[in-house]
Amino acid sequence: MMTQQEDSGLHTVPVMALITDFGLTDIYVGVMKGVILSISPDTRLIDLTHEIQPQNVRQGAFALYSAYAYMPTKTVFLGVVDPGVGSARKPIAIETNHGVFVGPDNGLFTYVLKHVKVRRAVVLQNQKYLRRQISSTFHGRDIFSAAAAHIAAGVPVEALGPALSQPASLPAPRFEVRDKVIDGEILYIDHFGNLVTSIGALQWGADDMLLVTPFFDPHSIPEMKSIRPEACAVQFYDRVIEPLCLHYAAVPPGELLTLINSAGQVEIAVNQGNAAQYLGAEVGDPVTLRIA
Amino acid sequence: MMTQQEDSGLHTVPVMALITDFGLTDIYVGVMKGVILSISPDTRLIDLTHEIQPQNVRQGAFALYSAYAYMPTKTVFLGVVDPGVGSARKPIAIETNHGVFVGPDNGLFTYVLKHVKVRRAVVLQNQKYLRRQISSTFHGRDIFSAAAAHIAAGVPVEALGPALSQPASLPAPRFEVRDKVIDGEILYIDHFGNLVTSIGALQWGADDMLLVTPFFDPHSIPEMKSIRPEACAVQFYDRVIEPLCLHYAAVPPGELLTLINSAGQVEIAVNQGNAAQYLGAEVGDPVTLRIA
Amino acid sequence: MMTQQEDSGLHTVPVMALITDFGLTDIYVGVMKGVILSISPDTRLIDLTHEIQPQNVRQGAFALYSAYAYMPTKTVFLGVVDPGVGSARKPIAIETNHGVFVGPDNGLFTYVLKHVKVRRAVVLQNQKYLRRQISSTFHGRDIFSAAAAHIAAGVPVEALGPALSQPASLPAPRFEVRDKVIDGEILYIDHFGNLVTSIGALQWGADDMLLVTPFFDPHSIPEMKSIRPEACAVQFYDRVIEPLCLHYAAVPPGELLTLINSAGQVEIAVNQGNAAQYLGAEVGDPVTLRIA
Repeated sequence: MMTQQEDSGLHTVPVMALITDFGLTDIYVGVMKGVILSISPDTRLIDLTHEIQPQNVRQGAFALYSAYAYMPTKTVFLGVVDPGVGSARKPIAIETNHGVFVGPDNGLFTYVLKHVKVRRAVVLQNQKYLRRQISSTFHGRDIFSAAAAHIAAGVPVEALGPALSQPASLPAPRFEVRDKVIDGEILYIDHFGNLVTSIGALQWGADDMLLVTPFFDPHSIPEMKSIRPEACAVQFYDRVIEPLCLHYAAVPPGELLTLINSAGQVEIAVNQGNAAQYLGAEVGDPVTLRIA
Repeated sequence: MMTQQEDSGLHTVPVMALITDFGLTDIYVGVMKGVILSISPDTRLIDLTHEIQPQNVRQGAFALYSAYAYMPTKTVFLGVVDPGVGSARKPIAIETNHGVFVGPDNGLFTYVLKHVKVRRAVVLQNQKYLRRQISSTFHGRDIFSAAAAHIAAGVPVEALGPALSQPASLPAPRFEVRDKVIDGEILYIDHFGNLVTSIGALQWGADDMLLVTPFFDPHSIPEMKSIRPEACAVQFYDRVIEPLCLHYAAVPPGELLTLINSAGQVEIAVNQGNAAQYLGAEVGDPVTLRIA
Repeated sequence: MMTQQEDSGLHTVPVMALITDFGLTDIYVGVMKGVILSISPDTRLIDLTHEIQPQNVRQGAFALYSAYAYMPTKTVFLGVVDPGVGSARKPIAIETNHGVFVGPDNGLFTYVLKHVKVRRAVVLQNQKYLRRQISSTFHGRDIFSAAAAHIAAGVPVEALGPALSQPASLPAPRFEVRDKVIDGEILYIDHFGNLVTSIGALQWGADDMLLVTPFFDPHSIPEMKSIRPEACAVQFYDRVIEPLCLHYAAVPPGELLTLINSAGQVEIAVNQGNAAQYLGAEVGDPVTLRIA
């Protein structure tokens, strides 16, 4: 029995985590699961989400980045947000030290790949591991599910096709550190209306030291020493929200607050309310962290 | 092979049932499942619902009450509707004769606890069974999923922390029996627009006897003898709906009806339609059952 | 290890695929899963969709038809779109060469049954394989889930009740072949706003031969020889969309196109957009395929 959340690596149950923009009203996700279990019947399936906005690769990339680290270390990730299905973009698999990522080569894995160690990347070309008939409009079913299921069942990634030199990449979200100011943007608005920004990951170290690890560039760590949470304010257009709180209930219900969220990102929220509605905020709006 | 729906208790597959207000558009539920399967890879996961209205503890409590009895008897229930996350409310686990309930101590288990036998309740304090780093905003991931997974994997509940004397409780919904009238309220509006009331559980016994078992107080059973369904009418503001029907198709499509639903509660519905829209009804509206 | 997506038939993990109109906001689907796993704990559950429009049997029938062939061959299909619950319609199970179909006898299996070989059909009457108490409003829980779980656990279909002579059937959707014109209708609008028509299944054979296999009557195959994709146009009211494309990205983002979709049906779409909104289209609207 494990006493930590970390994966022991001893168990042999294959796990696959799915993220798509297919929604749950149609049978597309169910069809992929049927293909997967037909090939690899013991695979345990985790739905990360299927409600990525249609064709919004960047939102999918951020959601996948936010989730991947909590999956068992040998998880196969099946990501299908694929506006170019059937066109020239390549179907790929990337083996890393934290799972294998299967999907279209359109930048969907950009943010994850900043944080994991890539062992190999291949183009999914070996027809032995794809469905016999490949449609031009549902590669999620015919290519990605089949390939991911074979990987989950134990086929080595290198058997699936020739090496890929460099996966496609999305541009970085706004993150600029200037003296005692960090400029970012709203990257994601969640179900509660909380506004997740590109500022982070932040954590408080010893001696009131604020450590900032830009999620797009985790190897550059600008340190801002001797900063107390009370000295931090977040600016959204002409509104200043301060100080950084520790949890949502730190302000009365209905009031605006800002905190470092569970992923380490600066977030704007309303206690028991909806900050997106409260502020009329949208993805892409600028946000600034100021230190007094 | 079992020939009844009841759980034999012989199988050893751990089952966990999840209920949250996280929705399915974000990766929060998927992240919890990753934490769970990292700790207890064989656990079978059942989603009760993740669409509880944000922070609506009472709706969550009623939904959990409506579902729990149909789960295998050793199910671990993971309930996260948690407006006070990060504040003083305690994280708890309650072991009963029908599963273990894990979540915040804010009343979420109130209705279930009226119906099951509590064996022990503890505060989740043993850090051995929590995630190493505990955020202040996502205890669903860092405390509840980890603790529930360890319980599913076989850790005894008493190992998770010190005893809790009395879990928090919600106030009772309206349920007043006066002579031949029962006053209640709309507790829940489902996906079909059916209006589930606090009047029940009712069932027809022998000799046209209507048995009423208030779900909030199952040990007090006001009996109402010699009542035929045809003698019952339900009043919603100035509208009287009668008699009690046996199923939705008892009236023509588009017409209003009332019946005792599959949970034994009085329900107002429209055959193949939406009673909430038809009546402009909302949760909390008063409803009266009258016996002629 | 299998190298094709087809099911080997060797594994013994029972699989059940669920399709309902219950939505995901209530606990109804979770309750069915609790009943299923209480009876057959090892069953792997696949959600095809629970977002069929309330009581829309025809939409459910088309969705089930679109998905069934991708499930493992011994899958038990549990379909509950059941406006007549509690009335005279029969609860049934139909064993075929591609799984067992369990649900109400209201035409939900019509389209699938045109494509599979029926081995036997029974009425679910043997109370040994139902829940002890059967409500009049939730047969999905009390009859269908219990029966399907017993079948998944190995009970022979013929043990569940007496033979059914002829399952109920829905009328055929519009599909008329006239010289070089096929008249159809919009059968389904998906999450992306793509318009799936009743024209199909189509596939390109050798020598530019267009093979049409009406999904409602797969044994009649009108062949239309020597037709190139460039010679096909789809008419929706006064708008002509041409030619048939191979994938969504064949036209610039925001533009209308038509293609043969992953199920072989003619589909109208907007690249990275929503064709239903673009055209104001609804299910039932007429569509015509013309060959120049």
